[in-house]
Amino acid sequence: MEASRTQSINIGLLGYGTVGSNVYQLLEEQSGEIAKASGATISIKKILVRESDVPRSGAPSDMFTTDFADIIDDQDITIIVELIGGTEPAFDYITEALEKGKAVVTANKQLISQQGFYLFKLSQEKKTQIKFEASVAGAIPVIRVLRESMVAANLTSIYGIVNGTTNFILSEMSKTGARYEDALARAQEWGYAEADPTEDISGLDAAAKMAILASIAFHSTVKLGDVDCAGIEDINPLDIEYARELGLTLKLLGVAKLYQDKVNVRVYPALLSREHPLASVNGAYNAVFLEGDAIDEIMLSGPGAGGMETASAVVSDIVSIVSRRTPGFLEYPVAYKELEFFDGEDVISTFYLRLEVEDVPGVLASIASVFGDHQVGIQSVIQKGRGAHAELVMVFHPVAEKSFMAALKKLAALPDIKSEPRPIRVEGNGEQ
Amino acid sequence: MEASRTQSINIGLLGYGTVGSNVYQLLEEQSGEIAKASGATISIKKILVRESDVPRSGAPSDMFTTDFADIIDDQDITIIVELIGGTEPAFDYITEALEKGKAVVTANKQLISQQGFYLFKLSQEKKTQIKFEASVAGAIPVIRVLRESMVAANLTSIYGIVNGTTNFILSEMSKTGARYEDALARAQEWGYAEADPTEDISGLDAAAKMAILASIAFHSTVKLGDVDCAGIEDINPLDIEYARELGLTLKLLGVAKLYQDKVNVRVYPALLSREHPLASVNGAYNAVFLEGDAIDEIMLSGPGAGGMETASAVVSDIVSIVSRRTPGFLEYPVAYKELEFFDGEDVISTFYLRLEVEDVPGVLASIASVFGDHQVGIQSVIQKGRGAHAELVMVFHPVAEKSFMAALKKLAALPDIKSEPRPIRVEGNGEQ
Repeated sequence: MEASRTQSINIGLLGYGTVGSNVYQLLEEQSGEIAKASGATISIKKILVRESDVPRSGAPSDMFTTDFADIIDDQDITIIVELIGGTEPAFDYITEALEKGKAVVTANKQLISQQGFYLFKLSQEKKTQIKFEASVAGAIPVIRVLRESMVAANLTSIYGIVNGTTNFILSEMSKTGARYEDALARAQEWGYAEADPTEDISGLDAAAKMAILASIAFHSTVKLGDVDCAGIEDINPLDIEYARELGLTLKLLGVAKLYQDKVNVRVYPALLSREHPLASVNGAYNAVFLEGDAIDEIMLSGPGAGGMETASAVVSDIVSIVSRRTPGFLEYPVAYKELEFFDGEDVISTFYLRLEVEDVPGVLASIASVFGDHQVGIQSVIQKGRGAHAELVMVFHPVAEKSFMAALKKLAALPDIKSEPRPIRVEGNGEQ
Repeated sequence: MEASRTQSINIGLLGYGTVGSNVYQLLEEQSGEIAKASGATISIKKILVRESDVPRSGAPSDMFTTDFADIIDDQDITIIVELIGGTEPAFDYITEALEKGKAVVTANKQLISQQGFYLFKLSQEKKTQIKFEASVAGAIPVIRVLRESMVAANLTSIYGIVNGTTNFILSEMSKTGARYEDALARAQEWGYAEADPTEDISGLDAAAKMAILASIAFHSTVKLGDVDCAGIEDINPLDIEYARELGLTLKLLGVAKLYQDKVNVRVYPALLSREHPLASVNGAYNAVFLEGDAIDEIMLSGPGAGGMETASAVVSDIVSIVSRRTPGFLEYPVAYKELEFFDGEDVISTFYLRLEVEDVPGVLASIASVFGDHQVGIQSVIQKGRGAHAELVMVFHPVAEKSFMAALKKLAALPDIKSEPRPIRVEGNGEQ
């Protein structure tokens, strides 16, 4: 690398929490390596914080400012790294940066999953770049792989374990037989869950990430609001136990499918065969499993979050921008199609169902006939005695969800059904 | 995408075997998608083959030529895709292409692992690009991830299952208890092994791929000749069986380590805890497991070979070149350091050892004292009776390989040892 080619790149950092301070540290520690790899000296020039007079480690105190104008009006700053999260004021800051032709790196999944489409378009109009590797799955470079390596893959499905908190909780429940509440408490104690874990356990966090992944994989706009989502709050340890007996493991799964040029994206608890590569992704780990005509199946896995991992993804985005900051550089467009969605009702799924029933003669016959009436085939039934009640653990043949849900509705009206039936989908068996 | 920005890119294809014809097919089928993603219409203009008058499916017959000059002298052809394999004449062809400023895509692991350093330098001097994603692990985009996403990761280790043939054979042996010869025969029958499988089973193929991965990950030149390599020919089903009892799985593993700015790269059969993510990579699958300061651990896995998978990687390289074919584009340099190597003898390893011994009093004592004399600590011993002989299955505490090998040499001289001791390393337990 000739010395004459080394440029100086100045960065404006928005936010100085765990990830922000790790980005600062990585850029300092790795500056020599980065200069050799990218031909540029990259330094943070200013950092936006809410309060300026709080003592902070790492960056020198005169770098901090509470005024965004200090950063956005600085001509030397050509890259804005947004790590404040949430949609406001992050959206305004990023918009202004792109309008001014500055490049943007963000880890903000909420923003990208809701306003990404607008920001991608703006960045192309302004001939600049926006990068967001850190918004999904920490240091696992799934955004880059989807944007750049899968162009000929003809992707048809993405399965994701993209929320570390819920995967930790389900792994704990599975390992120890713990109830949901106890596993959540343990996750909070160990720092894997927030004091208010709603966004994680409801599946909303995973839904935002799946919206981003589906947009990129299918080249079409999928927003958070387009993703159907169910969480893990109602998971019963019994289902985990019975599933294990059937050779199945419970995961909170994001599932994005492309079928006949239509898209469906959902997040729900699902059962996977123990042999499936995603089944052995445990604890706070994340994984993304891609299926496509030309690639068969590819999985990427690793730690989902963590300040240093996320910072590593942010820095690789910065270096990528620096290395491609040439006039006329053609950024891969993110979404150039406007695909329609197909309804979850039309998906063909395999269901698992546990039913609490009155242990009286004829109950199985009446249940079986409801499913028969709806053309829902039963693959296996196991009956378990539990005191006065009995439990039926059923697995069905693949069926249109519409038919299954109709059968379930009828079933709930039967007098011998003692609790609300909560079906769980079985994934990874090659059905559409 | 404005129509005015669409360029036409012409490709010269060298070789039209399985991968070549799949590249042709993918470029045809996906041309619309690729044009939208890259802003370019990419077509194959000429194809170099050995004999011109053989009937071929796919490309029209007037595209074929037996004369390289037809391709290299064609001014319209700006990208050469080399799929003939081997070092000659591939090296000459690629050198000439780069000399002329044409970009190159190759799937040639032999060439890159032996002459990569020279070709990378040449491509930088000539301000063009050489891409080789398809040379390692088929459709798994490990080269791109290493080159572009790990710049801040500070990688310290790479573990790879990078040869599908040997992984298939070991998976078969493990699943069915088959002997090596029978599992090899099955692999050949099913098309997972060549009639002459030497390069695969000897570990040489894996060594070439590990040399490439290590070069990129550690930014230093590692050639095929720098990689120590042992194959799977001498694997005994008993070791697989005993290892399973210990909770371990046998894999042919590539291991590249960076320690105090020195590099060591080896390929050998190794035992992995069943819990390790690599342990569940079975059949002809490949996987690469990366460890680094800032990323903890990341795994990429998928089908290792297959014509369509490899073609998909080739096409993504082509699109990547097209999208970045801007004047002054700064390619990430591959190797800008000249790191030294450290000796395998200095590595701290955990060993497993099965010893066939005479079943006489005092034999364990004499063995234990040899290890004791060399400061090699025994972690566990299981004694198994087998007819007149006994077998000792031993696992040791982590130890410098030098000391262990010295102990082994002494051991072989003991009269009660009935067969040559063949130790197997145990990996993935966090040792250096």
